[in-house]
Amino acid sequence: MNVTHHGRTGQFRTVTFDAKNNSIQLIEQRLLPHEFKIVGTKNYRETARAITDMVVRGAGAIGATAAYGLAQGVLAFRGSGLSKFSTHVDLVYRVLAEARPTAVDPVNAMNDVRRKIKAGKTVAEQQALALAAAEEFANEDVWHCGMIGSHGAKLIRNGMRILTHCNAGWLAFVDIGTATAPLYAAQKQGKKFHVYCDETRPRSQGATLTAWELAQQKIPHQIIADNAAGHLMQRGEIDLVIVGSDRVLGRTGEVANKIGTYTKAVLAARHKIPFYVAIPCSTIDWNLKRGFDIPIEDRHESEVLGAWGINSRGRREYIRVANPASGARNPGFDVTPAELITGIITPAGIFKPKELWMHRCQLGSAR
Amino acid sequence: MNVTHHGRTGQFRTVTFDAKNNSIQLIEQRLLPHEFKIVGTKNYRETARAITDMVVRGAGAIGATAAYGLAQGVLAFRGSGLSKFSTHVDLVYRVLAEARPTAVDPVNAMNDVRRKIKAGKTVAEQQALALAAAEEFANEDVWHCGMIGSHGAKLIRNGMRILTHCNAGWLAFVDIGTATAPLYAAQKQGKKFHVYCDETRPRSQGATLTAWELAQQKIPHQIIADNAAGHLMQRGEIDLVIVGSDRVLGRTGEVANKIGTYTKAVLAARHKIPFYVAIPCSTIDWNLKRGFDIPIEDRHESEVLGAWGINSRGRREYIRVANPASGARNPGFDVTPAELITGIITPAGIFKPKELWMHRCQLGSAR
Repeated sequence: MNVTHHGRTGQFRTVTFDAKNNSIQLIEQRLLPHEFKIVGTKNYRETARAITDMVVRGAGAIGATAAYGLAQGVLAFRGSGLSKFSTHVDLVYRVLAEARPTAVDPVNAMNDVRRKIKAGKTVAEQQALALAAAEEFANEDVWHCGMIGSHGAKLIRNGMRILTHCNAGWLAFVDIGTATAPLYAAQKQGKKFHVYCDETRPRSQGATLTAWELAQQKIPHQIIADNAAGHLMQRGEIDLVIVGSDRVLGRTGEVANKIGTYTKAVLAARHKIPFYVAIPCSTIDWNLKRGFDIPIEDRHESEVLGAWGINSRGRREYIRVANPASGARNPGFDVTPAELITGIITPAGIFKPKELWMHRCQLGSAR
Repeated sequence: MNVTHHGRTGQFRTVTFDAKNNSIQLIEQRLLPHEFKIVGTKNYRETARAITDMVVRGAGAIGATAAYGLAQGVLAFRGSGLSKFSTHVDLVYRVLAEARPTAVDPVNAMNDVRRKIKAGKTVAEQQALALAAAEEFANEDVWHCGMIGSHGAKLIRNGMRILTHCNAGWLAFVDIGTATAPLYAAQKQGKKFHVYCDETRPRSQGATLTAWELAQQKIPHQIIADNAAGHLMQRGEIDLVIVGSDRVLGRTGEVANKIGTYTKAVLAARHKIPFYVAIPCSTIDWNLKRGFDIPIEDRHESEVLGAWGINSRGRREYIRVANPASGARNPGFDVTPAELITGIITPAGIFKPKELWMHRCQLGSAR
């Protein structure tokens, strides 16, 4: 997407590969929205560390980073013995897989690369295939998000006021994003609309990342407290809700996403406001039978008890907001039942949540 | 209530009168929860400034402060001429009324004092009556909150998990509070329960003031992000909701309260969790015909774009959390319709919101 930084504008992906220096270029997401900086990793171990330390975050973005990281490690191999090479590939794979053990995208992405290099007959051929496969993975991520945008943009009409929650934007993928894709596509079609970004406490991804993206893309928007959406809906000031998801159950249509998503879905249903979830097909879990069984991570209480931001001297700082003697409870995600969801926007089209299973062949074949 | 500070425990009201020094003693609420400090005002102009600057906040607390402030100003009068005295009373009244022009409580409280001093035949008699009337006002506030606690405690059973929003605690009144009154009364009865305090962004009164009060009273509690209540309700982990209110419409039962209250009421109704609103009778507006006509204050966007807290060096500081190029929208209150409210807890008993009008004589006679 376009980023304007210190007066200069450029086109950026969250993850790219610099073949000349065998380096992966990443947007340093921990500095956003207060600083825009591209960092390069020199080798696959640095790439793994960038995933662990959350320089890069978001399902599609860490998938592509791991795919490129595998290629990076593979390209650094010196020699021509296929057996030694194969041992080296396994080592690189393992280091990158361990960088974010709970995520499924890096593993899926690297399996894809590893399968494809087998077609090469020499080390040099396999090295070339690894890079080609990683590039293909990243390009497919962009293509899928583009398709989500193309389907989702049909829902957006001139003058609409659209609510988002958290960040499922281009920063979470290689480009375009999922929940944001319909916005960017509609903008390209010349449609005018206004976006309300839920702040998304406790980590404030809406106020920081989504607001930053929308500002870069020059889409009119305002941040609201998570408490305010209900009031705006009641006054008829929200026309559409689009969110992303961490896991959608293919059998039931239930949607796991950032804490607070369920609340917005309940409010939208009460006010008969369409509520859509935008996802790549890789987010669909075809096995799990009930949303109640999705593990809900209990995160550290410090997130709820304070906030990170920039102080008056321009330095990044954590402040304690809450009463010092009090503790907090901090569930990170919640599960929204299918009955509250108008539709699931996928690269293969828009489906009712309860009809995903019926279309599983079509949805399963897209990545 | 009991406050433990630097190892010492004492009984405190938010507002008291020091007759020896003709000074009003206030808990400096802007320093809470990080520092507990009592400040004294030397004269009625300082008292007015303390209301304006929010040293003291909350309907009952500023009502009592204004009543005491009027007595303070009246007691400072030197002389015996009733006509000059009367001019002086009007001046004090005006200065204090202008301290928080949108609030109704200071004016109601001072009208009460001014009416009662008329019974005195000399300046000295009227001065004594002023102080007696202010003391009576403060004591009535405590008595009314005590009655709310007594009625509301019947709703609380052992083992309950109770959700609160914002602060309608003893800090907002002279003592005991409204939404917190049932908790304190139930605790005295030996009942065991757990309280979840909504953080209450953007001003975080739940995380700061309510959590501080509950910690002082040794009531088990945890702060949650405003986004988390829906998830906890869905998992069956909340049994009861009690909130306060800024204005309840006597004709319709609609409730105006801190932004986010409506959202919690919608969620509670979906999960069939009882939702109660605790108020003194002075909060009932018998005139307004529709909740939609209650003016909703749009507050400054800086509240949503950042947060106040204590930094690592122990200093109070504002940090900017949100994207620097983005703005915010910040409605301060919302309106909850009667159909979502199980009951209104008042000093005169618990009423269904739509039955307030039917009981208006009973409710109107209590202050």
